[in-house]
Amino acid sequence: MKNLLLASTSSLYGTDYLEYLLPELKLHFKNCKTILFIPYARPSGISHEEYTKKVALAFAKINIAVKGIHEYKNPALAIQNAEGIFTGGGNTFLLVKQLYHDKIMTTLKETLEKGTPYLGTSAGSNIAGLTMQTTNDMPIVYPPSFQTLGLIPFNLNVHFLDTDPQSTHMGESRETRINEFHQFNNFPVLGLKEGSWLEIKEGKIILKGNLSAKLFRQNRIPIGVAPGSELSFIK
Amino acid sequence: MKNLLLASTSSLYGTDYLEYLLPELKLHFKNCKTILFIPYARPSGISHEEYTKKVALAFAKINIAVKGIHEYKNPALAIQNAEGIFTGGGNTFLLVKQLYHDKIMTTLKETLEKGTPYLGTSAGSNIAGLTMQTTNDMPIVYPPSFQTLGLIPFNLNVHFLDTDPQSTHMGESRETRINEFHQFNNFPVLGLKEGSWLEIKEGKIILKGNLSAKLFRQNRIPIGVAPGSELSFIK
Repeated sequence: MKNLLLASTSSLYGTDYLEYLLPELKLHFKNCKTILFIPYARPSGISHEEYTKKVALAFAKINIAVKGIHEYKNPALAIQNAEGIFTGGGNTFLLVKQLYHDKIMTTLKETLEKGTPYLGTSAGSNIAGLTMQTTNDMPIVYPPSFQTLGLIPFNLNVHFLDTDPQSTHMGESRETRINEFHQFNNFPVLGLKEGSWLEIKEGKIILKGNLSAKLFRQNRIPIGVAPGSELSFIK
Repeated sequence: MKNLLLASTSSLYGTDYLEYLLPELKLHFKNCKTILFIPYARPSGISHEEYTKKVALAFAKINIAVKGIHEYKNPALAIQNAEGIFTGGGNTFLLVKQLYHDKIMTTLKETLEKGTPYLGTSAGSNIAGLTMQTTNDMPIVYPPSFQTLGLIPFNLNVHFLDTDPQSTHMGESRETRINEFHQFNNFPVLGLKEGSWLEIKEGKIILKGNLSAKLFRQNRIPIGVAPGSELSFIK
């Protein structure tokens, strides 16, 4: 049974890295002494080593050790043997390219389907969707495919922002972009605001945090989803 | 000799489609009775026919007729025979995929290098760069390559926005994204604000409009570029 936390963002404005999630993470990873960290999304180009150090500092607060997947010779085996797994945010194109390069997309999917507890933030949550096609990131590298883990039957749009009716900027709003996605793809997209996360446990998908989410489906009017909602109806 | 206008946006807030550019376009396309329109970027999923109608309405104001490339059996021949060419905005992934599908990326490049007057707006300007990797668009379809026309020796970031120091949003700023691009790519990126365009004529690249642009280069501090500047120093 899948056991996932998929957060829109790692940090809220003005708070420490992962701080707002630590009470949840303490429960989520309660059976883990060490978790495996996948640093491949490399926000601002930070190295795998530096990113892993930053994550280790945050997890030290709840007495969990962190090892980076780049420290292992066999990354597939590292995933299969992990007590828990965390994929951090950054650039989704870079993350997906590296997962394919390491040939671990399928291993990660199968391992998480068996129940290894997982945390994703931002790009690390994007990859739990069917594809990475609703990322906000720049295509700074070319991955061999946009297909991702498919651990949930829809896509996420993280760091979701409602359209600002006062904006005079002529670039596309988030909503316009997702509507364009639905001209060519028929699966749903959940806009997940910063401070929200999905908890996938015991066959249920629950929207956590204090904010509503926005659900976009092809040829349907988008709807708001209240915090605490069960989302298994999204297909 | 290349003869290009590359605009950040087709429209300014509160004005009609292409309105702010019409005086320029009248000069730029002065020898054209008809121009060829490439509608492939399809903003909000608009059809090729509807998009071409919209463009024809704008160009009618300066007595230029518009034909869509989708109306031709042989799109390569349509490009080679065009008096002038305009590629409109929308989704850059979609535009690039369709240009590769039609096998016209090279034809378009060669034709524009010979001097056929060209207008690009937004996605239509992105493709003039070396690659489409600094687009702001969502990867709603998977193109076979991110390489584009390379008519200028750098990339563009259109609809460019300076970082808002007041923002509490934790998604990456435009500047952060471009810096991430430069972790993996070494060519320059010009952030082109709405209302700015590049004029490439007689071997010169001039920044037009009333606003400054921002130049990002690998391992260098970004610099502002004043309107009217000649940009051939960017390599």
